[in-house]
Amino acid sequence: MLTKLNHIAVVVPDLVAASENYKTRFNAEVSESKDLPDHGVTTIFVKLADSTIELLHPLGEDSPVAKFLKNNPRGGIHHLCYEVDDIGAAIDKLVGEGAKVLGGGAPKIGAHGKPVVFLDPRDFTGVLIELEQH
Amino acid sequence: MLTKLNHIAVVVPDLVAASENYKTRFNAEVSESKDLPDHGVTTIFVKLADSTIELLHPLGEDSPVAKFLKNNPRGGIHHLCYEVDDIGAAIDKLVGEGAKVLGGGAPKIGAHGKPVVFLDPRDFTGVLIELEQH
Repeated sequence: MLTKLNHIAVVVPDLVAASENYKTRFNAEVSESKDLPDHGVTTIFVKLADSTIELLHPLGEDSPVAKFLKNNPRGGIHHLCYEVDDIGAAIDKLVGEGAKVLGGGAPKIGAHGKPVVFLDPRDFTGVLIELEQH
Repeated sequence: MLTKLNHIAVVVPDLVAASENYKTRFNAEVSESKDLPDHGVTTIFVKLADSTIELLHPLGEDSPVAKFLKNNPRGGIHHLCYEVDDIGAAIDKLVGEGAKVLGGGAPKIGAHGKPVVFLDPRDFTGVLIELEQH
């Protein structure tokens, strides 16, 4: 069902410092920072070997990652995002087996302009998993 | 310097339940469980799309993941493991730039029989990074 690991999301207290750190220490390619007000985050993408780290920092008052940063002031891994071919079919299968989709259950347009859902981490040993349709 | 994401390590309260969950819900391939007494963990590998999740459970009294599980009783993402060609050169570069290697600084033989080190998460926005020589 999952076709590819799209990114590993890391919430950080300082986006520029974090991206410079990955760039200097691991020769990583880093993107420009981008505000996503609809999602309450500012992001920088870090290409680390064959994986992508999505650095996230809260934007605005209702940011979905503000509480995480408060609980983890140094930062930390926030979620894993996997690609799926058909997000509707994936949701139907998972919900049919008793898994829970956060935020009402219907896909929303995510940070990359594609339909996404987040699965309840209580169903996946504490791991928050985002599914993104590609 | 980093050549490949080797695995994402997830500490879980119940290895069999967690691996069955990934198998059933995501059609993942899962390995047999393996006790690694020298490392204080029992492991199961889960092949999830193009990534590998290493499920970890404490083994013995001095397990390095016991405290993590106590603090995160549902489980959670513990570390990211990246491959390097030359772990000695990687350590020299990182330490030369002020990063800290945990456990004395010298590589040890890791869970896969290869030299590994763990980098201090305080240098990487709370992310524990394992380097493994391949």
